[in-house]
Amino acid sequence: MPRRLPINRATMKPPGWRGKLYDIIFEADTPIGKAFDVALIGVIVLSVIAVMLESVAEIRAEYGALLYTLEWIFTIIFTIEYILRLVCVRRPLRYATSTLGIIDLLATIPTYLSVFVPGAQFLLSIRLLRILRVFRVLKMTHYLTEAGVLVQALRDSRRKITIFIFSVVTLVIVLGSLMYLIEGPEHGFDSIPRSVYWAIVTLTTVGYGDISPETNLGQFLASVIMILGYGIIAVPTGIVTAELTQQTTKQHEARAALASQIRCPNCTRSGHAEDAAFCKYCGHSLRRRDL
Amino acid sequence: MPRRLPINRATMKPPGWRGKLYDIIFEADTPIGKAFDVALIGVIVLSVIAVMLESVAEIRAEYGALLYTLEWIFTIIFTIEYILRLVCVRRPLRYATSTLGIIDLLATIPTYLSVFVPGAQFLLSIRLLRILRVFRVLKMTHYLTEAGVLVQALRDSRRKITIFIFSVVTLVIVLGSLMYLIEGPEHGFDSIPRSVYWAIVTLTTVGYGDISPETNLGQFLASVIMILGYGIIAVPTGIVTAELTQQTTKQHEARAALASQIRCPNCTRSGHAEDAAFCKYCGHSLRRRDL
Amino acid sequence: MPRRLPINRATMKPPGWRGKLYDIIFEADTPIGKAFDVALIGVIVLSVIAVMLESVAEIRAEYGALLYTLEWIFTIIFTIEYILRLVCVRRPLRYATSTLGIIDLLATIPTYLSVFVPGAQFLLSIRLLRILRVFRVLKMTHYLTEAGVLVQALRDSRRKITIFIFSVVTLVIVLGSLMYLIEGPEHGFDSIPRSVYWAIVTLTTVGYGDISPETNLGQFLASVIMILGYGIIAVPTGIVTAELTQQTTKQHEARAALASQIRCPNCTRSGHAEDAAFCKYCGHSLRRRDL
Amino acid sequence: MPRRLPINRATMKPPGWRGKLYDIIFEADTPIGKAFDVALIGVIVLSVIAVMLESVAEIRAEYGALLYTLEWIFTIIFTIEYILRLVCVRRPLRYATSTLGIIDLLATIPTYLSVFVPGAQFLLSIRLLRILRVFRVLKMTHYLTEAGVLVQALRDSRRKITIFIFSVVTLVIVLGSLMYLIEGPEHGFDSIPRSVYWAIVTLTTVGYGDISPETNLGQFLASVIMILGYGIIAVPTGIVTAELTQQTTKQHEARAALASQIRCPNCTRSGHAEDAAFCKYCGHSLRRRDL
Repeated sequence: MPRRLPINRATMKPPGWRGKLYDIIFEADTPIGKAFDVALIGVIVLSVIAVMLESVAEIRAEYGALLYTLEWIFTIIFTIEYILRLVCVRRPLRYATSTLGIIDLLATIPTYLSVFVPGAQFLLSIRLLRILRVFRVLKMTHYLTEAGVLVQALRDSRRKITIFIFSVVTLVIVLGSLMYLIEGPEHGFDSIPRSVYWAIVTLTTVGYGDISPETNLGQFLASVIMILGYGIIAVPTGIVTAELTQQTTKQHEARAALASQIRCPNCTRSGHAEDAAFCKYCGHSLRRRDL
Repeated sequence: MPRRLPINRATMKPPGWRGKLYDIIFEADTPIGKAFDVALIGVIVLSVIAVMLESVAEIRAEYGALLYTLEWIFTIIFTIEYILRLVCVRRPLRYATSTLGIIDLLATIPTYLSVFVPGAQFLLSIRLLRILRVFRVLKMTHYLTEAGVLVQALRDSRRKITIFIFSVVTLVIVLGSLMYLIEGPEHGFDSIPRSVYWAIVTLTTVGYGDISPETNLGQFLASVIMILGYGIIAVPTGIVTAELTQQTTKQHEARAALASQIRCPNCTRSGHAEDAAFCKYCGHSLRRRDL
Repeated sequence: MPRRLPINRATMKPPGWRGKLYDIIFEADTPIGKAFDVALIGVIVLSVIAVMLESVAEIRAEYGALLYTLEWIFTIIFTIEYILRLVCVRRPLRYATSTLGIIDLLATIPTYLSVFVPGAQFLLSIRLLRILRVFRVLKMTHYLTEAGVLVQALRDSRRKITIFIFSVVTLVIVLGSLMYLIEGPEHGFDSIPRSVYWAIVTLTTVGYGDISPETNLGQFLASVIMILGYGIIAVPTGIVTAELTQQTTKQHEARAALASQIRCPNCTRSGHAEDAAFCKYCGHSLRRRDL
Repeated sequence: MPRRLPINRATMKPPGWRGKLYDIIFEADTPIGKAFDVALIGVIVLSVIAVMLESVAEIRAEYGALLYTLEWIFTIIFTIEYILRLVCVRRPLRYATSTLGIIDLLATIPTYLSVFVPGAQFLLSIRLLRILRVFRVLKMTHYLTEAGVLVQALRDSRRKITIFIFSVVTLVIVLGSLMYLIEGPEHGFDSIPRSVYWAIVTLTTVGYGDISPETNLGQFLASVIMILGYGIIAVPTGIVTAELTQQTTKQHEARAALASQIRCPNCTRSGHAEDAAFCKYCGHSLRRRDL
């Protein structure tokens, strides 16, 4: 399957003043670019807090007007920012259809929507997804590597996870139907969809207790499902762990290989252990460069 | 122990028109055979949705007659299909006693049964198990390999899992009896079987809260059981993960070994790394054939 | 630390008729010895089922007298068996103080105790522990090896588990005290011990819901505890899994080493793969002996 | 980043009588030093039990005065001990700002605070953290090594865990907002913060059931969250396990390497296996020294 190429930042940067704007808004290398990103993250966090506070009845009663005004100010800021992003990028359509571009757009729409559909503004929490940029701003390359290991492990095990989820869905529908027949509407198992909901609540060990079996046969079957769920919960953990162990082993080996290539600045000999701070041949410090 | 051989498809196919029917119904290699399987999966999904909808009281009140008719139509389709399968296979008894054959039969019976036993039609959800054919239809060989790894890991750890379940059952009976003595019927621990049910709910960390200890001693013992359950839940995960790590390591090694046998189409030298896209000797692309 | 030696069966067997009795009761090698053990397991299971049924109010009302009689019959059988064991063993005290000996004794006491303390008979469930002999009877040596792997993994990680439980206990007491201050008796957090119980219920993800935080601060702290518990639950799993992976790797290697030593009965060459069924040199079947 | 050096005990010990006091209070090498630490641990445990008992209404009603007196006695003991520690250490400020020093101070403050703020004394449970010294007292070097392995595994995976918690927090805020819109205040989802609390309760599989979805759409979304949580719970386990497997493998290898260096006291040859009890060359016992 042909894979969509990631946005090549170099080709996205237009010449002239738009290029300068691009450096400020899209990049975090220059001081002003970094300041922009830090300010943006601050505004995102503030706006999500405002939305969350507005949803609390007592706070809305007292500060409703203030929060409403703030919400519109934040939305206008994000709208201007979104337009600027479209303006200063070389291929606006490509940005607009990228994942980050869609999230940027979704972060502004709910406020406008709330004029027609009351309550839509609470969807503004989706703005929080924009904060994923934080990793880029803080130049946490180490974190990006680790995130890469996690994502790689999940990607390598996607087929096993698909099979697993497919099997679990089949299982809960069959078990839910059985429990609907055994317990019936008089014990809260109103319909098969509701029984399936109960089976998921049980199999994932969440166990709200809003619906729970009351007949002897129902409690027996529920016990079997729970012990089954006990074993089943082991499977996704096993899948992810097995892949992560692979990735971690590779990472450790790569780090050890890198370390063993370090040359002592004094005697130029290499082959040192990963955690060596001093040359094992001449005792000179190896910590000359930051790794 | 002698193992039952899997059905050998080649010997199952009869000659003549029955052979042609066999290719359509049992195989997914020809366009018409694939179309049949895709249509069948569609009908299965639709019929299970119909059963689930019928169980919702409001929907049954309004569309009961329609759903009842649909149910009979689906059942007649599946019955004809089952008879055709029996007809076009060389050894009908062998098919009828195979796992898939039994599921195919069970998928038709509940409707006929519902004439005598009202409510039996809700057992039709079992039809969903027929959908397991989906893996064959979509030719997801990659998925089959991964499923094989999962199944192999579970099979290799079946003895450890047996011991584990045996120990857990012994434990919950002993703990349930203790809690029955401590808490007694006045706090919901009506009988030892019910207390055992509670112990399973607790040990698996489901925790409905329909029965929960109220005396100080009961809550203390429950705390001990929970911390115990904390450790115990680690065991099945550990078992499955340890086996999966073995299998995954083998899989990675096999893939690496396979990759190292790839020959460069330009210089015919082999020994390349698993993720190599270009020949390390002459720089020619290695991506000639789809892996 | 000097370890107590396991009971050496050879030295436990006395001469004469007591030796013959010993073979019947303690060993499962002879047909009569095996029959004795199978019968014993049957009686144990039956007696535990009787105790469980007696605890159900409706059944006790109807069959109380029958179950009471059965209970005494089972107890007398077990008492006689216990006395016979003491008689036919060379060193009765050593048997009486061994784990199995103590369980054998405990399996008889509750009935006698119930004459003075009503309800004590429900402790008879402890008889179920005697069923652990099942592994010996069925000669499940494979199972014993696997059980050994599990026990070895748990033993190797006992220090890590001790540290872990010690830390968890400290944590739940500190967190429980905090929640007692925040929520107070009006929301069900009656006392610090009860708050500690709640903290354990939450940290282990059991979550009955019999006590749950209602104030905003309480729900916030509870959220932190839950996400903490999320990470903490990973630790025992990690400990056990890491050890089990070690053990499983060793087991696989040992099995592979054993397999490679198998000699072809035809050409006498060794070095075959673990899953080889036929000699790779001459094609002769390797499955001559049962592994 | 420059790391703060651990307190070097040698440089902390002052000369003269303060040095002698230092040996008693800070060290556990001398008999009197060990006795001091054991007594201190006893006092800590007793004082925490007193605090816990005081929180139980019935016990407070009867023994309130006694427990109040005990509390002040314990607090005065800990205050004197804290002053002595400050006196006998060479650099009091360094001790006072170390983790253990801060805990030592916090263990005394709540009682004084309770004069002004009733109820503050229940914070005394924090004293329990002082008990972490237990590891030093009991000279459990084996335990310290194992604790080190655990801590190292957690430290090596701190970046992955940070990313994970960051993602989970973002997820629960977005999901909580959605559920607030779907279910609304009439089903207990009062505000977004409360819905986020519900999302955390569900995703961590705690599942109190104090708030649970009642609409069909809400139960459907909840089911998706639960199956998601199923997969998500696998991630921290995978992270910790993968690191622990690394550490455990290293530990096993180190132990094996150490074992293979053991020389037979009879023939002085080395290279024995980790679990060898006898020399494989001459059969002489290898268990001369305690490992």
